[in-house]
Amino acid sequence: MSEGPALDAVAALRHRADEIIPEEDLALRLREGRPLRVKAGFDPTAPDLHLGHAVLLGKLQQLQRMGHDIIFVVGDFTALIGDPTGRNATRMPLTREAIARNAETYQQQVFKLLDPARTQVLFNSAWLEPLGAAGIIELAAKATVARMLERDDFSKRYRGGQAIAVHEFVYPLLQGYDSVALDADLELGGTDQKFNLLMGRQLQQAYGKRPQAILTMPLLEGLDGTKKMSKSLGNYVGITDPAPDMFGKLLSVSDQLMWRYMELLSARTAGEQRALQEAVAAGKNPLDVKLDLAEELVGRFHTPAAATTARADFIARFSQRVLPEDLPIVAVQAPEGLMIGEALRQASLVASTSEALRLISQGAVRVDGERVADPKRLLARPGDYVLQAGRRRASRIRLI
Amino acid sequence: MSEGPALDAVAALRHRADEIIPEEDLALRLREGRPLRVKAGFDPTAPDLHLGHAVLLGKLQQLQRMGHDIIFVVGDFTALIGDPTGRNATRMPLTREAIARNAETYQQQVFKLLDPARTQVLFNSAWLEPLGAAGIIELAAKATVARMLERDDFSKRYRGGQAIAVHEFVYPLLQGYDSVALDADLELGGTDQKFNLLMGRQLQQAYGKRPQAILTMPLLEGLDGTKKMSKSLGNYVGITDPAPDMFGKLLSVSDQLMWRYMELLSARTAGEQRALQEAVAAGKNPLDVKLDLAEELVGRFHTPAAATTARADFIARFSQRVLPEDLPIVAVQAPEGLMIGEALRQASLVASTSEALRLISQGAVRVDGERVADPKRLLARPGDYVLQAGRRRASRIRLI
Repeated sequence: MSEGPALDAVAALRHRADEIIPEEDLALRLREGRPLRVKAGFDPTAPDLHLGHAVLLGKLQQLQRMGHDIIFVVGDFTALIGDPTGRNATRMPLTREAIARNAETYQQQVFKLLDPARTQVLFNSAWLEPLGAAGIIELAAKATVARMLERDDFSKRYRGGQAIAVHEFVYPLLQGYDSVALDADLELGGTDQKFNLLMGRQLQQAYGKRPQAILTMPLLEGLDGTKKMSKSLGNYVGITDPAPDMFGKLLSVSDQLMWRYMELLSARTAGEQRALQEAVAAGKNPLDVKLDLAEELVGRFHTPAAATTARADFIARFSQRVLPEDLPIVAVQAPEGLMIGEALRQASLVASTSEALRLISQGAVRVDGERVADPKRLLARPGDYVLQAGRRRASRIRLI
Repeated sequence: MSEGPALDAVAALRHRADEIIPEEDLALRLREGRPLRVKAGFDPTAPDLHLGHAVLLGKLQQLQRMGHDIIFVVGDFTALIGDPTGRNATRMPLTREAIARNAETYQQQVFKLLDPARTQVLFNSAWLEPLGAAGIIELAAKATVARMLERDDFSKRYRGGQAIAVHEFVYPLLQGYDSVALDADLELGGTDQKFNLLMGRQLQQAYGKRPQAILTMPLLEGLDGTKKMSKSLGNYVGITDPAPDMFGKLLSVSDQLMWRYMELLSARTAGEQRALQEAVAAGKNPLDVKLDLAEELVGRFHTPAAATTARADFIARFSQRVLPEDLPIVAVQAPEGLMIGEALRQASLVASTSEALRLISQGAVRVDGERVADPKRLLARPGDYVLQAGRRRASRIRLI
């Protein structure tokens, strides 16, 4: 790749990324025209991916589509050890079988987005175990205590009098050594991984290799909008969540957080996103934006059809706060369609079409969860519609 | 051993020691009546022992004479690694052959004081290498960063902005693990080793074993009287130094430091030492005390005869500030011996016996380095005498 296209590629990779260090080195490598070795780590104790991981996977997908090789490093070496301090009862050592199972689960998930043919999954015990006792000591000699204590979480814990076990200083070195063993060109991770990714650079240099570039992606906030999305905090959307669950969880985020999810996850261009924000500022219902975003994302991890169904089901569920299947169904012969006022009357939600018109003018009528503004709205297609009149009256009508 | 004798033994062990931690635990073990497993470490990069080591060896000798087993741990595991930071060019990795050679040299030296039959020499690579990469990580998990930074030298370096490599935090853990592997009852070391010895206690506990007691010995100051005795500082008396060198070095210490050497190295009881101090305070020449101490110590590492010779040679050398073999020899027929005044005159050091008597009364006359107070002093035995008259005139006289 010559200079121009390489710089274009860097610009494309910068999209949504937090940092690329050093950018000029990444540009240099892209100019070499070969597939880069792109490394990302995977913690085999937590095989269930969520949308937080999807932010990173999206960037890996972009790199893969540019022709680069994706290497997932399964951190099985430390998973086999568990938490050697014994402080964390939830971090029991995993067996090799459990790790293989989790890696399998993980692959099934990432292959929703990535091409299996250009994705390698490697286990780091393959090169860490052979280091032996002496090799680990030599590795530990490659970094200083002061450097380790610069890492945010370590410095906070040290200042706060919270215990840091000595082996915790070794863990970033193990992750860094993975880059040495793999000759990684580029490592990706969340912004919270920046220290560890830079350690990979430092170690490659210490072992006489070319230091990798790093690319960090922002961390996606969980559904609560404050903490990082994480399974243990229960504020996550799993990428294998059933379509209706995923849809419901996405609709539960605040209007503000919705823009963040769109920014980090949607395929919409920045321009399209700005246009939507302006439309909402001018009066467009943010719920509609949220529904579209949820449908887009559910469609990505399931199918577009499943997403459409989830949307309709959600609307009914959300709008009526009851399960749509619990609603009475009123079947109506209407080959030409039915006006909304008449539909409400037929479903016994209003006593008269004039009451229906009054409710519509008050904005209290919804069809499939969407507010009806037009009193002349025609329900044209045959099939089921969820109708609401005010907060408490809801029914389903089937046009046949 | 019942309680009384065990407490007596503790009291005897306390002699010269800096600390025993915990004393009551050591007493408990002594009461068990079995030979205790007494551990001491040996750095195979520095096989040449000096009097600083002899302080510790003296305590081990005492323990061995009480019937306990002495185990020297050769730290070959880290010696094989060398300095993995590459900062210390003088700490190159040693080969197994070099380590074996150094251990052999070491044994030859310690067996000047210890009984080979009750002394084991073990190499810690035997249990540290099999820990493997995972075992080292697990070991590193047994201590906290905060605890490591409490160690004096680490805390000074950290505060002073001097680099501490992460593996340096692992080294005290390796030494501590030696105690785990050996089921040590008691570990000995210099006061500068206290942190590491306590780490042995901590690790034995972490690995579900009974924690060892520890005994620290004071550090012997070097010949300069200020810094710890060490080969690299050049302020040491090697225990394999030739007798004349050892004698000369010991005579070079200050009168004050002499008492310290006596306290830590002499077999004299504390009462005898006090009596000597009082005698010096009352006018006894401290040089005589120093000569006796040097003769005692040289005799311990060589033979008493060699020590006596060294003393005589030293006296001549020291007193005349020239090599005795460089002095002119005047042979005199004197089968009945020779009065000191006459001897000085025959050796042409004085013009007359009256000058000789004047010099003697001024304290300016020495025979074999010792000041002559008695003007009637008879040189009775045949043989060589080094005579001095004042600072600059010296000669040897041979009575035949």
